[in-house]
Amino acid sequence: MATAADADAMRRAIELAARGLGSTSPNPVVGCVITDASGAVVGEGFHQRAGGPHAEVHALEAAGERARGGTAYVSLEPCNHTGRTGPCAQALITAGVIRVFYAVGDPNPQATGGADTLRAAGVRTERGLLADEAEAVNTAWLTSVRLGRPHVTWKYAATLDGRTAAEDGTSRWITSAEARADVHRLRAESDAVVVGSGTARTDDPHLAVRGIEGSTQPLRVAVDTNATAVKPGARILDDAAPTLIAVAEDANAAHLPGAAVLRLPRTATGLDIPALLAALHARGVRSVLLEGGPTLAGAFVAAGAVDKVVGYLAPALLGAGPTALAGAGISTITEALRLDITETVRIGPDLRITATPLAKER
Amino acid sequence: MATAADADAMRRAIELAARGLGSTSPNPVVGCVITDASGAVVGEGFHQRAGGPHAEVHALEAAGERARGGTAYVSLEPCNHTGRTGPCAQALITAGVIRVFYAVGDPNPQATGGADTLRAAGVRTERGLLADEAEAVNTAWLTSVRLGRPHVTWKYAATLDGRTAAEDGTSRWITSAEARADVHRLRAESDAVVVGSGTARTDDPHLAVRGIEGSTQPLRVAVDTNATAVKPGARILDDAAPTLIAVAEDANAAHLPGAAVLRLPRTATGLDIPALLAALHARGVRSVLLEGGPTLAGAFVAAGAVDKVVGYLAPALLGAGPTALAGAGISTITEALRLDITETVRIGPDLRITATPLAKER
Repeated sequence: MATAADADAMRRAIELAARGLGSTSPNPVVGCVITDASGAVVGEGFHQRAGGPHAEVHALEAAGERARGGTAYVSLEPCNHTGRTGPCAQALITAGVIRVFYAVGDPNPQATGGADTLRAAGVRTERGLLADEAEAVNTAWLTSVRLGRPHVTWKYAATLDGRTAAEDGTSRWITSAEARADVHRLRAESDAVVVGSGTARTDDPHLAVRGIEGSTQPLRVAVDTNATAVKPGARILDDAAPTLIAVAEDANAAHLPGAAVLRLPRTATGLDIPALLAALHARGVRSVLLEGGPTLAGAFVAAGAVDKVVGYLAPALLGAGPTALAGAGISTITEALRLDITETVRIGPDLRITATPLAKER
Repeated sequence: MATAADADAMRRAIELAARGLGSTSPNPVVGCVITDASGAVVGEGFHQRAGGPHAEVHALEAAGERARGGTAYVSLEPCNHTGRTGPCAQALITAGVIRVFYAVGDPNPQATGGADTLRAAGVRTERGLLADEAEAVNTAWLTSVRLGRPHVTWKYAATLDGRTAAEDGTSRWITSAEARADVHRLRAESDAVVVGSGTARTDDPHLAVRGIEGSTQPLRVAVDTNATAVKPGARILDDAAPTLIAVAEDANAAHLPGAAVLRLPRTATGLDIPALLAALHARGVRSVLLEGGPTLAGAFVAAGAVDKVVGYLAPALLGAGPTALAGAGISTITEALRLDITETVRIGPDLRITATPLAKER
């Protein structure tokens, strides 16, 4: 049975895991805390980047001999495979750890089995402590393993009456500086940031992360079906972060000679969203922040490819202007995409609402 | 100086005041608590309906002789005038109360002066205890006294992406049963409920209060500029509550022989909103719940006649369909009506957001 001290140690492991968000793909984020035989914390670690040591390795290194007879708290099941680093289950056994708590099982068929290895070596091994919190911190990676495509968070900013700009197209600024800074945090936690051709054309966005120390830059993706929106010299093409321009197979992208261009099949309304996500997944992208505009967001909703919604609602009314979402293929109320609000938080004067689609049969 | 016990008594007085919401117009809501010389509560009361006894009278009646040497806590300055009931300041003096706390001064020129009367009689009188809370409970009445028109709350229900119905017009139900029940509470607290011709035509709304015991029915008002939306037999014309059909001066309302018809000047887009509010004010309406649709709400926003916004946001996405607000006369971002979010609360699965316009120079 887990005690309150066990829960505290696991909570800390999950906090540590969160530090890796945005820089571990295609790996999960993992945190680890080691306590000695008396229960004192003697080592902490988290997985910092793909190719680097796993969380357990960092924590065991910090603990040294004090791990012997101690307990390990890991946010994800210790791996069983020898990848770029050795199997962590074996490392814990070798270090003399006698108990392991892990929050969530590893669904990756290549890595699973760590718990069995531990048990076979006589280590008392328990699964499920703070599983919900650990799922939440790893939701992007878990989704990508389960669905075989990146986890997609759709972010929008709108007035209380649902407008993303005024009638004349002006939108600087609908939301506050605090809300805009919060978006940079979302970007830093994502492997890729995606915008559509309307946004690319109208806003000439930069999409790189600013103001967050030590953050990894996400891949910037413009969905520019006809290769007409991203112009030479566009801010998205600078060297602040990698960039990918997704265009239709038949589009002429000759004006973008230096840019990485991804060619995808067309659909009636734009590019094939599942094909886009598959291509991103193949490049190791496990989490996508979809930043609009309304048409691209509608295509993602229509494709069933929105896993989380983060709306920044500004306390303002406009009564005219573009809306956050369009063309989602929903024509009657019973077809509405129903969500569950998981968090509501004030960000400066604005409100940030986080919601996830209600579970449907897949 | 007020003690914690004084604040508790005033908080109770404000709670009592709130019980009168919706049934005291054109009077304010007022609550009163009397404690005896030892500080024990010996009387409570609130103003229940216009023409009935004031809060202080109820509380003094309950306290009887025990009020002598005691303290009165009143959410609004005790009145000084002899209206349908005697002046409360005098009643408190006669009862032997030696201290009076009141939260908010009475801005009504006919009633003010109660505090001076109390002080002149040697009663220790303090103003301002829990003034913000007391202002909030009386905001409709205070606004109506200050502006000479009813306080207007605009209520809307929309999806997270700001739609009030799906593309095909279906809207049953965007929000939950809990949210719809909450709207009946808003209606019960209002003197009048107002809808536009689009809503009257499409929804044939009833607009009476259901499911709230002992509530006073609000005046139902349909703004039907051309007298074409409300048909004979419309649900709004039944006898569940009084009804007023506001039409243009030149409209033909001959098909509504039994209905109370209010004739108002036309504007470019509909009826003159200030004239409508003045007419309602003249009928004793101090608080209006504006229930839409988007065009009428836009006209109210354009007229600067929205004092509070209550939005029920359903966690759902539609991507098409009518929006909550239209034609507010705002064309660029700097003209946006900026608000301050004063409350965010979960109502079942939905979110209720309350906001008030940021103070502007009037």
